[in-house]
Amino acid sequence: MASVDVPVALLGYGTVGAAVHRLLEQNAEDIERATGHRLRVVHALVRDPGKERGFAAGEGVLTTDFASILEDESVTLVAEVMGGVEPTGGYVLDLLRAGKPVVTANKQLLARRSTELFATAAEAGVQMRFEASVCAAIPVIKVLRESLVVTNVHRVLGIVNGTTNFILTRMESGAAYQDALAEAQRLGYAEADPTDDVSGADSAAKMAILASVAFGSRVELADVSYEGIDRLRPEHVEAARSLGAVVRLVGTATLVDGAVDVRVGPALVDRHHPLASVEGPFNAVMLQGDAIRELMLEGPGAGGLETASAVVADMVSVLGTTGTGFLQGDACWRSLPKLPPGELPAPYYVHIEVADRPGVLAHVAARFADEGVSIARLAQHVVNGSAALDVVTHTAPSGRVATALDAIARLPEVHGLPDALRVIDERGI
Amino acid sequence: MASVDVPVALLGYGTVGAAVHRLLEQNAEDIERATGHRLRVVHALVRDPGKERGFAAGEGVLTTDFASILEDESVTLVAEVMGGVEPTGGYVLDLLRAGKPVVTANKQLLARRSTELFATAAEAGVQMRFEASVCAAIPVIKVLRESLVVTNVHRVLGIVNGTTNFILTRMESGAAYQDALAEAQRLGYAEADPTDDVSGADSAAKMAILASVAFGSRVELADVSYEGIDRLRPEHVEAARSLGAVVRLVGTATLVDGAVDVRVGPALVDRHHPLASVEGPFNAVMLQGDAIRELMLEGPGAGGLETASAVVADMVSVLGTTGTGFLQGDACWRSLPKLPPGELPAPYYVHIEVADRPGVLAHVAARFADEGVSIARLAQHVVNGSAALDVVTHTAPSGRVATALDAIARLPEVHGLPDALRVIDERGI
Repeated sequence: MASVDVPVALLGYGTVGAAVHRLLEQNAEDIERATGHRLRVVHALVRDPGKERGFAAGEGVLTTDFASILEDESVTLVAEVMGGVEPTGGYVLDLLRAGKPVVTANKQLLARRSTELFATAAEAGVQMRFEASVCAAIPVIKVLRESLVVTNVHRVLGIVNGTTNFILTRMESGAAYQDALAEAQRLGYAEADPTDDVSGADSAAKMAILASVAFGSRVELADVSYEGIDRLRPEHVEAARSLGAVVRLVGTATLVDGAVDVRVGPALVDRHHPLASVEGPFNAVMLQGDAIRELMLEGPGAGGLETASAVVADMVSVLGTTGTGFLQGDACWRSLPKLPPGELPAPYYVHIEVADRPGVLAHVAARFADEGVSIARLAQHVVNGSAALDVVTHTAPSGRVATALDAIARLPEVHGLPDALRVIDERGI
Repeated sequence: MASVDVPVALLGYGTVGAAVHRLLEQNAEDIERATGHRLRVVHALVRDPGKERGFAAGEGVLTTDFASILEDESVTLVAEVMGGVEPTGGYVLDLLRAGKPVVTANKQLLARRSTELFATAAEAGVQMRFEASVCAAIPVIKVLRESLVVTNVHRVLGIVNGTTNFILTRMESGAAYQDALAEAQRLGYAEADPTDDVSGADSAAKMAILASVAFGSRVELADVSYEGIDRLRPEHVEAARSLGAVVRLVGTATLVDGAVDVRVGPALVDRHHPLASVEGPFNAVMLQGDAIRELMLEGPGAGGLETASAVVADMVSVLGTTGTGFLQGDACWRSLPKLPPGELPAPYYVHIEVADRPGVLAHVAARFADEGVSIARLAQHVVNGSAALDVVTHTAPSGRVATALDAIARLPEVHGLPDALRVIDERGI
């Protein structure tokens, strides 16, 4: 097989960009053997060419001038690893319009501007691939698109944020939330400002991308309701343990009678559910569909080298399928309605602090019954001098559970607001 | 995108073949949207055209005449779902020589004749894909080849037989081996003659295929040493539990200083290891490599529809990459030496029944020490009136452990032969 020389450009040359370059150089022979192409980085767009780099870029490669990449006709493939929504989005659009395929690792860009990006790629007849934008080296986008082409996927569950999963695993071992967060920061798993991770926003962006690909219908960040782990207390982790479960930050994308629901929130995951065994900073995505029942992919969901590995795999896939039209365009081909927020059916775990006196249980139970929410398990115990009820409901629409909790919160015997966490178990739709 | 009509043929029309046809018909629009191709089954080779089928083949499709498929020039893609090594192997070779790409679900054929098959495919310039030959709908072949193109995978661990995993999970809940096997047969997870599954032979064939793809070097069934679960006793499961582990039938393919070791056997898997959470008839494959650390894929490893889903995905991949040369040829490009059987380093769990008298422990410990095998954990307890030692060693070459066990078996205080099971934990190379 004759080797084809492929000059490529990188937008960005930070941790991921330098790792992409290193993988391309160190594995040049593997890539050539597999594809017949030799990839060579000729430009890398940076802000400060003088800065120290993880892998030397080579003479004349670093540039601050985007136009020099856009206008270099020899460049037939670009990897966007600079992050951010602007000016990145404008650059990617310009490259696509110029007929250059783009591989991106940028989940924020995709979760916010995918409609425009894919339309532009389609119009220009070039590919835009984005495996690295979700869970780094876990190849969930490729598997969804190529391996499950005849499987109607109706549900995606994911632990798609390693920072929060690390914190929750540490809390399981007895650490307090703040200490676990501080440890995650010390180990480099969490940013100095951890808001994007612990609020659930990062997971929400990833679930928007996964839902779009799984259901073939556009889901953007604004369509995803999310809640983080910052309100979690040791009691929740302890209650989960006593119920044979663990607490995880779970994203779900669900098709309910042809309508799409995507949400992220802390959940009680049954110990026998495969997601319960995902520990530390790892990620996992479970795909449920007709022909496959369920398939789970688990691995490191972050890291410079892991992300770079996915970027390079996408670059190789672009080369292998140029001009064939094979599954390379926009994954979205239909426009499904969004499920109204209160209608997703799920079982819930509810923690209610109450006065320890007769009749309380009957009052609480009646409020659930009023909303048609039936109770699967109930345990009453004494915490800090007052009593607490731990309730697990049967599957019920989330809005009904919320309405019941509002009514319960107004009962005079109830202290404070009840907490509710979704339960993920085998009963899930 | 103009639609291309693709007449396809099936070799075999049993459970998998009928399911392939059904998926192709029911998802024809999905496939056309993704690929621009419309796949249409025009022939299906069977022994008895009069037999009842899971999905009607359509007028004139069933045939007993292989030549009618081989000589039909309109047929540009064939799926082999008939199983067996002969006459299947001859048919596949004829089809490849005639320039027809073949997708196969046949692990026995691949594990025994892959050298010849791939050489023929390469010479004819056509693809032979085989995702469905290993773990049904779990897309481990595609992920290894396409997503990990720049990751040097150095170890593959797999629970690749659902029958034995179901039996082991039931034994964990207290069932005896024979009862668990009978239950598996009742539920359709095990054949009337379960030898191929419980002996480890089925797992060995799959591990040979996985090792070949992961390391790019041919491994055939004869290169794999294997042991089954038929000698396992409830005591092993109980001892595993007390050591914080579970018993699983684990296949490993390992690169040790450039040499290949592939083996299958019952192992103690630490509860915190991701493979420990694989329950019931599910399969899982863990890939360990440079750039990805570790990636695990878990799902149903058998089933007609699941297998058919992988066959169809391969057919779609053949279409999407025709003529590009992209990762479609033989995965093997080098010939690595095989590691001598006794040299794989691993920790071991050893169960030894001994007389309950002074000095026994010292004698046993001395035999391990003679072979340089150091002991990580040891528990002595009384079973059935005699004493038993449960030993976990540090990592040591398997041959050294075997030699120590031979010496221990010859000690006058030792009753019967000691059992040894490999330990799979985070220490694994």
